[in-house]
Order: sequence, then C-alpha cells, then structure tokens
Amino acid sequence: MLTEAQDYLSGQTLCDYFHVSRTAVWKAIRQLQEEGYEIEAVRNRGYRLIRKDDIYSQTGIASALKTKWLGHNLVFMEATDSSNNQVRRLAEQGAAEGTVVVADRQDAGKGRRGRSWLSAEGSGVWMSFLLRPQFQPERASMLTLVTALAVADGICETTGLDCGIKWPNDLVVGGKKVCGILTEMSSDMDTIQYVVVGIGINVGMRKFPEELRETATSLELCLGEPEESVNRVKLIDAVLRHWEERYDAFLQKMDLSLLQDDYQRKLVNVENQVRVLGYSEDYVGISHGITPTGELIVELNDGEVRKVTSGEVSVRGVYGYV
Amino acid sequence: MLTEAQDYLSGQTLCDYFHVSRTAVWKAIRQLQEEGYEIEAVRNRGYRLIRKDDIYSQTGIASALKTKWLGHNLVFMEATDSSNNQVRRLAEQGAAEGTVVVADRQDAGKGRRGRSWLSAEGSGVWMSFLLRPQFQPERASMLTLVTALAVADGICETTGLDCGIKWPNDLVVGGKKVCGILTEMSSDMDTIQYVVVGIGINVGMRKFPEELRETATSLELCLGEPEESVNRVKLIDAVLRHWEERYDAFLQKMDLSLLQDDYQRKLVNVENQVRVLGYSEDYVGISHGITPTGELIVELNDGEVRKVTSGEVSVRGVYGYV
Repeated sequence: MLTEAQDYLSGQTLCDYFHVSRTAVWKAIRQLQEEGYEIEAVRNRGYRLIRKDDIYSQTGIASALKTKWLGHNLVFMEATDSSNNQVRRLAEQGAAEGTVVVADRQDAGKGRRGRSWLSAEGSGVWMSFLLRPQFQPERASMLTLVTALAVADGICETTGLDCGIKWPNDLVVGGKKVCGILTEMSSDMDTIQYVVVGIGINVGMRKFPEELRETATSLELCLGEPEESVNRVKLIDAVLRHWEERYDAFLQKMDLSLLQDDYQRKLVNVENQVRVLGYSEDYVGISHGITPTGELIVELNDGEVRKVTSGEVSVRGVYGYV
Repeated sequence: MLTEAQDYLSGQTLCDYFHVSRTAVWKAIRQLQEEGYEIEAVRNRGYRLIRKDDIYSQTGIASALKTKWLGHNLVFMEATDSSNNQVRRLAEQGAAEGTVVVADRQDAGKGRRGRSWLSAEGSGVWMSFLLRPQFQPERASMLTLVTALAVADGICETTGLDCGIKWPNDLVVGGKKVCGILTEMSSDMDTIQYVVVGIGINVGMRKFPEELRETATSLELCLGEPEESVNRVKLIDAVLRHWEERYDAFLQKMDLSLLQDDYQRKLVNVENQVRVLGYSEDYVGISHGITPTGELIVELNDGEVRKVTSGEVSVRGVYGYV
C-alpha cells in the first residue's frame, strides 16, 4: 500500500484495511524501517514511503514476486550456513512445496561434490527452493537443466547479458562462471521425498580470490560500468518466474523435449571439442548437445557416440574452463 | 569379561584392566543392572553374572555383534519415531558409515511410499544403518535387494525358517510378510551423500490387526510352538554379518551378478504368473527372475519381455499377496 500510495497514508486507513490496532500498524512500520525502508511519519497525515527502491529483505522480495506459486512461502535470512541446508531442514519439518529461502550471506555455501561456494554478504543471490514432485527419482537430475535454462532467462531479462549454459549446472558469461546450481534430493527407492534446488548467482563481487580469478566472474563485472548495479530483487523475481514457466514445460512431457531447442541455443561448446573428465578415463570429442532426458551427446574421434550423464563427469572446453 | 568369567570377578581386576576407579566400575555395573543383567555383588569376592542370556540392550547387542565394521558404532534406543529418521538425523550430524540404530519400539515406523509400519515394543527387530558409499546414486536401489538376501540368510540361520524374497523389498514365510526393507537416500545429482537402510522384522507378534492378518505374520507365529522364542540379539548379529558379506560381493562388481543365483533361489514366483501393478497400467506375465542390476524380468502373454524397475510397481502373485 505504501508503494502504491500517491500521498500520505493515514494510520487509520491502514487500521481499517487490516483490521488491526494503531499499535500493530506502528510495529509493522518500525519493522519495515528496520529492513531498510525510509518511511516518514507525520502527525495527522500518516505514513509516506520516501525511496521506493526494492530492498533486499523479506518484504522487499515478497512484494516484488510475481510468481504463481513459487516463493509464496518465502524465508529471507541475513545469514545461514547454506540455503540448501536451510531448505532441507524446513523440508524435514514439513514445509510446503515452493518454499523459497533467500540468504544475504552463506557461511558454508555448498557446490557440487561437497565443494564450498563463496557467498559473501550483499554480493550475490543465494537462494534455494523446495519441491515435492510426484515423478520418479531418476527424473530429478533433469531439474538441474530446467533450472539452468530459467536462470539464463532471468539473467538475460534483468541485465541484458548473454548468458550461456555450461552443461550440466553452471552458467557462464564471457567464458567465466556467474552461477552454479546444486540440486539435492531425498528419496526412498520409489519416491522422491523432496528436492532442493539451490541457485548461487555472483552479482556484485568486484574481485575474486586468486584461485577463482580465471574461472569465475560476477554480473556486475560483466556489465563493466562501475556504477552499473544489478537489482537482486528483480533478478530473483525474474529467475523464479522463468523457472515456473520452464518447469511447466518439463512437467508436460516429463522430460526436456519441449525445452531442448532453447537449451541448445544457450549451451556452450555445441559442435565444438570438449574434454570429458570421467571417473576412470578422460577423453575428447565433439559435443552435439543434449538428449531429451538431459544427457550430453559426445562424438569421439573414431565416430563412437556417447551419452554422458551428469553423474559421471566434468566437461570442459579443450582449451580451458569453458 | 563377566560373560566369560568362570567365577566371581573382583572389582580390583576390573579396575586394573580398564584403568579406572572402583567408583567407575560400580557405575558400569549399575548400568548393566539397569539394562536388565542380573549381576551379583559379593563383598571380598566381586561380581558375578547370574543369567548369561542376551539382553536386548546397548550392551547385549554390542557384545554379541561379530561383524567386521557394521554396527561398531551402535545406538540402542528404547523408543524412537522411526529408526530410519534417527539414522538420517545422525547422518546430517556427520555420523560414521556403519552406524546402526536399533529401537525396541517405533512410534512412527515407516514403510515404502510413506506408509506406516507397525512396530510395537518387544515384538520385532526395528533397525537402520548408515552407509556413505562412493558409487553413483542410480546404483543405490540395488541395496534393497542386497539387504533382502542378507536378511533371508539371517532369518534362516537364526530360526531355520525357509524365508522367501518378494521382489523388491519384502520377505515372506508361508506366503505372508515377515520383513520389510526401506532404503532411503540423500544425494546431489552426482553423488550419494548417504544411504539409510531400514529393516523391520516381525518377530514376536502373536496377533495382527484385522487389515494385516491376511498378509502379515511373525517369525514366532511361523515357528508355531508357543514357547519357541526367537533371540533378537542373535538375529541382529546374523543379519548384519550376512549383510557385510553380501555387500562385499555387491561391491566387487558394483551390481548383483555375484548374488543373482542365490537371489533367484530365494525369489518367490519365479517362472510363475505375477501381476504387475504399474502407475498407469496393470498387467499379468511370467516372472523370470532378476537382471544383474535388479530389475524384475516379466514376460507377457504375447512374448514381450519387460524389465520392471522397483520404482514403477507392486508385484503380486496372480492369486493373492504373494
């Protein structure tokens, strides 16, 4: 209401609308001010929001979300160990499908295979959400690809950057990683109990530690202009909206066949040489894109065609990270 | 030491052996007495164990286990919600591979697909253990079959009963279920974080609720003689020992090829008609046993051969539960 009001909004109007006391209104205003909203309170006139910018807070994100269901249960945290772990704990306590956790900082952010993920305060979008899908556990690995596509959509919508997909779970701009996706699952052999999809987008970092400098970048570094800042609230909304849409397409066929063309367009290294780093062997071949179930098709020099599953390998360009 | 001693064991001997004080020895004796051990304490002579029976307790089970590694970290509980849930919580806290939880009672025992599992005090073996395997998530469903074979071994060793396997996760005696297995997994798409194998064996129930009477039984009901009681401590030891052995055979080939013959011999309905209850269709065919990766081979009347994965279906005999 404050965002949409043209003028001062009287305390009484708010009391009447929400059926609460003056004290309750006052407490809510105080809480918004603590989240960072500048709200002016003038006796006999009421309240007025001074700066209408999105604030990276519970209210800021919740009121910006234009999704149909994803994130309607939203948990914003200034800090947590890992947003994936936080969603897992909520899942074990029975949280609803679509619950989203956004943390401004992760103290133990996680990447694939137990690697850590740098997630300093204010510098990125670290968020995870909960799914309780009805399909078989084998299909869940496709969700990483659905998510990659949606995040690429969201980054493009918000920043205009041309964001590529490095199969299976990284997003790259200009040859460096801007986003990683970590999909975790709890299942019995028949049934998925829940899936946690984690998304980490490097937004504002200006400098990376030595060991990451060659392979990692951030959206703001890619945009170049030092004053160019990316609105994380808008980015979250865009990613989650696109995710709902891409997920709908996935559910229609229970595979990636409706997404394959769009995926292929964003996939890096299509028809180029890639190096596949397997558990027991490494090899080089030409990447021909993905199958409808998400395997990477790689043709070896002798003509043998392999379907690479995400569990087996890392895939890199022959000349470096991408 | 008390079990093996021929005569009284002096407090001083115990102090010297364990390098602890008299008080510490006395406390340990008190704890054993609380677990149910009858221990006589005679001044100037020492301690003597009166009945050497296995007690269903932390000490009773721990001292009976002859496994190589499984259960060396043992947690005995008089009651828990579900031993699988308890192991999951321990896993999240970093518990070691091979941790075993045995509960004398489950207040919310779990079966497949979120069904409940009757687990009254004193009436069964309700136990779960933790694995942190290095293989790919897709292979984990085979652990249910490895476990079924090991439990059948253990039941046969302890009771002499001829125990059959109802693919994929039940054990039957005389056409009724005596044991269910629930394998749960936490994974990211590449890597297993942990697996929880849960085993529920009906041991002492003399009567089942109406709705289970047709399909469930207990080992003691099968043995018939009312005084015939099954030693649950020995049963746990036997099951876990056989599990280690069967798991070794699984790890050698990373599939069931070394176990297939034994499995086939215990599998019910081989070369008989079975009814496959799928998600979208039911059909009848002849069961030809399992593949090396654990699918059930079913030949339809028109000669089509299907490989049924455990995620898809229930399988029953055409004339009833088995």
